[in-house]
Amino acid sequence: MSDTVFAKIIRGEIPCHRVYEDEHVLSFLDVGPLSTGHTLVIPKEPAVTLGELSDEAAAAIGRVLPRICRAVMKATGATAYNILQNNGKDAHQEVMHVHFHIIPKLGSGGLGIGWKAGEIDHAEAAKLAEQIASSV
Amino acid sequence: MSDTVFAKIIRGEIPCHRVYEDEHVLSFLDVGPLSTGHTLVIPKEPAVTLGELSDEAAAAIGRVLPRICRAVMKATGATAYNILQNNGKDAHQEVMHVHFHIIPKLGSGGLGIGWKAGEIDHAEAAKLAEQIASSV
Repeated sequence: MSDTVFAKIIRGEIPCHRVYEDEHVLSFLDVGPLSTGHTLVIPKEPAVTLGELSDEAAAAIGRVLPRICRAVMKATGATAYNILQNNGKDAHQEVMHVHFHIIPKLGSGGLGIGWKAGEIDHAEAAKLAEQIASSV
Repeated sequence: MSDTVFAKIIRGEIPCHRVYEDEHVLSFLDVGPLSTGHTLVIPKEPAVTLGELSDEAAAAIGRVLPRICRAVMKATGATAYNILQNNGKDAHQEVMHVHFHIIPKLGSGGLGIGWKAGEIDHAEAAKLAEQIASSV
């Protein structure tokens, strides 16, 4: 049994502002929102990172994300939004249970993004792509 | 027919460093990487935003994300990573075809995140959650 705050929410030990639930997925409002309507979507399966999640649980989340996004945007009036899912403390993961953020962009509220793009080295990239492809 | 660069990659009119492909999904290295192994995962279905994507296409992407994440981390040696998916120009979407970024956190490379969390108003949140839930 996992002891994260999300595991406790799934078990009903901590309340949440629920927006969706099915056999595999629970979705509720973030209590520290970056903007109005900031919503979390989590698997009931207790995985820490996305890479540890089963195909089935990940497909179940994928399937409902568009529907939840539409409902959040309808309720908030936002038209732009970011989906963010962090894995590992170095990547800003704070609760050690997989969670997708749906973050409406509303005025100055929402996700801040720092984007320092590099240039691809095509020879190196070809090798790397092959290496990744061989283990997908 | 869509004329985005991703539609052209799907049709094979522009080359890519492919890491995965199936009936619904194509995945390849980002040519302007934030870190080594920065990978894109896109549906073959031509939707601009996640909210416009069909359940089936979204489930197909969800299902393969963990596998692609594991392969990218194995090849790059990264242990932390972010998944980012932007919808709308105001939310930093640049190519108008749904795409998920898998961004390894490697040293100073990777996604920069600006996080100005507010505090939830529980009375307002209860109303908002109900409103969202009614249209999911």
